[in-house]
Amino acid sequence: MPLSEQTLIERFFRAVGAQRGDVGLGVGDDAALLRPAPGQELVATTDTLVAGVHFPPDCPAAAIGHRALAVNLSDIAAMGAEPCWALLALTLPQADAAWLAEFAAGLGTLAREHGVALVGGDTTRGPLCITVQLLGQVPPGRALRRDGAHAGDALFVSGTPGDAAAGLALVQRRLEVPPQWEAGLRERFLYPTPRLALGAQLREFASACIDVSDGLLGDAGKLAAASGLGARLEWEALPVSEGLGAACGAERARVLALTGGDDYELCFAVPPERVSALHAALPPARWGYARIGTLEAPAGARVMREGTVMEFSHSGYQHFR
Amino acid sequence: MPLSEQTLIERFFRAVGAQRGDVGLGVGDDAALLRPAPGQELVATTDTLVAGVHFPPDCPAAAIGHRALAVNLSDIAAMGAEPCWALLALTLPQADAAWLAEFAAGLGTLAREHGVALVGGDTTRGPLCITVQLLGQVPPGRALRRDGAHAGDALFVSGTPGDAAAGLALVQRRLEVPPQWEAGLRERFLYPTPRLALGAQLREFASACIDVSDGLLGDAGKLAAASGLGARLEWEALPVSEGLGAACGAERARVLALTGGDDYELCFAVPPERVSALHAALPPARWGYARIGTLEAPAGARVMREGTVMEFSHSGYQHFR
Repeated sequence: MPLSEQTLIERFFRAVGAQRGDVGLGVGDDAALLRPAPGQELVATTDTLVAGVHFPPDCPAAAIGHRALAVNLSDIAAMGAEPCWALLALTLPQADAAWLAEFAAGLGTLAREHGVALVGGDTTRGPLCITVQLLGQVPPGRALRRDGAHAGDALFVSGTPGDAAAGLALVQRRLEVPPQWEAGLRERFLYPTPRLALGAQLREFASACIDVSDGLLGDAGKLAAASGLGARLEWEALPVSEGLGAACGAERARVLALTGGDDYELCFAVPPERVSALHAALPPARWGYARIGTLEAPAGARVMREGTVMEFSHSGYQHFR
Repeated sequence: MPLSEQTLIERFFRAVGAQRGDVGLGVGDDAALLRPAPGQELVATTDTLVAGVHFPPDCPAAAIGHRALAVNLSDIAAMGAEPCWALLALTLPQADAAWLAEFAAGLGTLAREHGVALVGGDTTRGPLCITVQLLGQVPPGRALRRDGAHAGDALFVSGTPGDAAAGLALVQRRLEVPPQWEAGLRERFLYPTPRLALGAQLREFASACIDVSDGLLGDAGKLAAASGLGARLEWEALPVSEGLGAACGAERARVLALTGGDDYELCFAVPPERVSALHAALPPARWGYARIGTLEAPAGARVMREGTVMEFSHSGYQHFR
């Protein structure tokens, strides 16, 4: 049975996400009405997912819903902010009730986990494409930007980048791995974990931060460039998960960690004199992050291996290359 | 020459729109940082345009850029709010520099006209699809909602609905009109005018408001339904432009005014005791609006012609019917 646009919104999206007392008017009018906390800065981001570009078209709908919000939550995490309100623009070839219910469940579960209310959106007919806009809040002047780092700052990354790229290869049946690692890696692609708690804590320590979505090497380079610097990464320091190593060997695992994409981890800079305070307040083993290099004056991002610079042909995902 | 995503954003979108002092950080980081005015409510909306659904694929790029913002500005107008900050999610089959420059100019001109800063966005590769998210501000408790009307409230519409539908038919070469009306009607489709000044003024008078995007009859019905009412429109009262009358005759012109879509006018309710104050403060001839009917208890939207109810097969555009 075909669903009208209004029925679709009412049925699948009105009750998605957290209930928040600062929402004056949610889904169902021309616009939402929100009450920001007094004195906070507003943080706003948007990211689009296109079927066949950002995820295989046959991905589970719940994973697509999760991903559409997760990639935006990751941007909010990278600013050290608290996510609050989301808008969803959903373009669909047809309104399939089972798909929509699963999509809304995937998005809604993650939204509730992080206290995000879905306050509005738009549904249109067309090729499958999802844009989420996410609004958050941060104490004034305290947001983590890309441009605050100085030469000599230590460079860190959370999690184990590269896992998601291997997970995508598994989903696309381009990779085989020992069975005990398969589900975990696949999960790292299908259900990325935005690092919101870490991002908020890093306001106390980091001089700059970026979310790693297009490959660690390229994104570290963007952080460095925004700060007028370059980045030197150490090959041996790159954190690689046991599963990724088992899946493709230590060498290929580190290449994927540098260039893979879809990680949604945080890459951040910390002034050298704050590193021990960081380690004391946020034990690396518990919070899951590792030092991978240093920011320095010469522009560009490079990887040092046994004292020499490695060459990479592909340092991040580019949509229009 | 192919453009990288970062070059594309830098080159075409960094300086688009108004410069605002309340933007802490605009295009170029993981998210934008904004400083809402103290004590204001935040208004948030999003609308997507899909090529071939919301506009013919061969539309001028400037018109597409204008439209992407205008449809969102119209939502902000319908809330009686002031637009402030926009995010742009642009999905493109390829990065064509001439097309992008024209698109950015169309969007930027309208943004500057209404004091809107473009503070962020995302560019991705895929079928042409544009989502804008627009944030605005309104004094607390003063936004115009759909659900505030009462039985007996007078119903008004701004402008001359139906013109845009005729303009679309002209663009698609489905209609011929006397030459003196052609450019004007075409313009009404290609460059819709969001009614922001009227919307803000209506905070003093209107009990409810909606933007007319899917056809006047359907949208009047949505306003009425949100208020727990029905709407009675008077056939003879429907405002029809001279051009639309010349293009398709008085009868067909009124049908288009009721069902055409793409008008981006405001439909609003005013309590009967406030109508003369409205007319005094905002002279209808100067502000361009007309009374078209009344809200009443029986549910549904109907059109009265010489004392009988007219039948319509199509009362608004539905994406998933």
